[in-house]
Amino acid sequence: MTDIATIRDAARVLDGHVRRTPLLNDPALDEIAGRRLWVKAECLQHTGSFKARGAWYALARLAEDARRRGVVAFSSGNHAQGVARAARAFGAPAVIIMPADAPKTKIANTRALGAEVVLYDRASEDRDLIGAELSRSRGLTLVKPFDDVHVIAGQGTTGLEIAEQAREAGITRADVAVCCGGGGLTSGIAVALAAEAPGLTVHPVEPEGFDDVTRSLAHGQILRNTRRAGSVCDAILTEAPGALTFPLMAAHCGPGVVVSDAECLRAMALAMARLNLVVEPGGAAGLAAALFHPDAFSGSDVIAVATGGNVDRPMIERALAAA
Amino acid sequence: MTDIATIRDAARVLDGHVRRTPLLNDPALDEIAGRRLWVKAECLQHTGSFKARGAWYALARLAEDARRRGVVAFSSGNHAQGVARAARAFGAPAVIIMPADAPKTKIANTRALGAEVVLYDRASEDRDLIGAELSRSRGLTLVKPFDDVHVIAGQGTTGLEIAEQAREAGITRADVAVCCGGGGLTSGIAVALAAEAPGLTVHPVEPEGFDDVTRSLAHGQILRNTRRAGSVCDAILTEAPGALTFPLMAAHCGPGVVVSDAECLRAMALAMARLNLVVEPGGAAGLAAALFHPDAFSGSDVIAVATGGNVDRPMIERALAAA
Repeated sequence: MTDIATIRDAARVLDGHVRRTPLLNDPALDEIAGRRLWVKAECLQHTGSFKARGAWYALARLAEDARRRGVVAFSSGNHAQGVARAARAFGAPAVIIMPADAPKTKIANTRALGAEVVLYDRASEDRDLIGAELSRSRGLTLVKPFDDVHVIAGQGTTGLEIAEQAREAGITRADVAVCCGGGGLTSGIAVALAAEAPGLTVHPVEPEGFDDVTRSLAHGQILRNTRRAGSVCDAILTEAPGALTFPLMAAHCGPGVVVSDAECLRAMALAMARLNLVVEPGGAAGLAAALFHPDAFSGSDVIAVATGGNVDRPMIERALAAA
Repeated sequence: MTDIATIRDAARVLDGHVRRTPLLNDPALDEIAGRRLWVKAECLQHTGSFKARGAWYALARLAEDARRRGVVAFSSGNHAQGVARAARAFGAPAVIIMPADAPKTKIANTRALGAEVVLYDRASEDRDLIGAELSRSRGLTLVKPFDDVHVIAGQGTTGLEIAEQAREAGITRADVAVCCGGGGLTSGIAVALAAEAPGLTVHPVEPEGFDDVTRSLAHGQILRNTRRAGSVCDAILTEAPGALTFPLMAAHCGPGVVVSDAECLRAMALAMARLNLVVEPGGAAGLAAALFHPDAFSGSDVIAVATGGNVDRPMIERALAAA
């Protein structure tokens, strides 16, 4: 189980290899949100998302001979780039299994980081089977996107930074809106804040139709989404919370928040206009919740984690048009 | 004259009121530039540009009774917002004289910060006369956009941060490409680096047709531009370097670099795609020089200051189309 000691170890290992991303704010966003709104800009992380953290720590904790054989990962793109970057730095071969409909920029960036990319059809093919076969035939170690002790700990270092930055900003109580797929980042931040800043409460934020974590938390058991695709939030369309992430979220998180695709696009446009940040739709879900779902939060401060910014040009244009 | 002691004093005064903006990099940008390229992201500063620094320090150093009467400033928008924000914080009334063709977002933001905005026609009206009249009739103190000891010192705090961040990144020698209008930021950074990181050499970067600083440095005397408008780089279209900024640049800067509007738009698109940053055209000039004028620099590292990000939606769309 990922605990605060593991997250602190991850922070030591990551030091110098990931960025301490800034906590930004803007008076116009405060006004829309109806309270002080802070944005943890993980879209400024190496590879354009927080995934660089967990992937690095997972690679660092792998046995040397396993690293030499190489790693395999499934990802719509952000975990892919995080694993590719870490694998290259550690000298490990990397195979990334990506859906064929992933943003082109994510596929191209993953290849540019030296990884071998295998595309599959999200609707008809089973990525787990493809991964298992590759893993068996080539001796590759699977780096899971979220349900892994070290991946969760790496993502949790975001929470250590939020705790520190909140202290610097004089924030002792706040809600923290985290874009949530399988819950690796959400659970990691929740564990970190429970230990370092217990006045900060994490809320998972999900797109409509993909609210598995919100429903699972409400029902006290893991529930699944029926759909696998059909939201602009490609980065956070997972089927269900993980066996490791769910108990952590159940122990430490407040209720989830569900946002629409249109709200995510408007949040993207506002992030560009007011913070000069490019955020991808799934990375803007937390900001959308903070801006457009004020009743989901209480108190004077809300912190939204802008989790990633890997987005194709047409989606940026769509967001600008939605503003 | 602005010296390193004044810049250090400015840093003390600004502490907690401006952001220490990150120094970002990306492997794809390194590849285009042909060397390691670092971007000092001042577009993430409060009000979306470095101008928040100099304006704050200038207001802080104003006598209390002058602050009570109020301040006036000329600006196409970034200095305007910096002065408006600082004036509001210090409880000083602020009148900002802006060209009528300034980006709408800059005019709206300046008003939202509580300042009174007076628009003038860049081609037919003399903003100096308008300012002098306002200053006389209402007892307002002029906060100059660049040719002021305290404004230069405030902008120079960017240089202290660059020196520190370069040390952290292990950079001892580098060229520093700074988007240059009247030279307030350029001269301030140059003074800071001469004292704190003498292996870092500042190069002013200007748009074609507005290369007054580049020519002035080459000829050893202040030369003027003939045009007043006609570039996408609205933030840096000044007539000539200042009486205070020019000697500092002559003493400390390397040769200037001239970039085209098309290069600035491509640099904007790359900043969005690779760094998830929204940069305005004039704020992307330094990045354009670093990316597309490799022969202007020597050595293994170049640092580009992305000076601002206040840009209207049509210009973002134009940059995306130029990519």
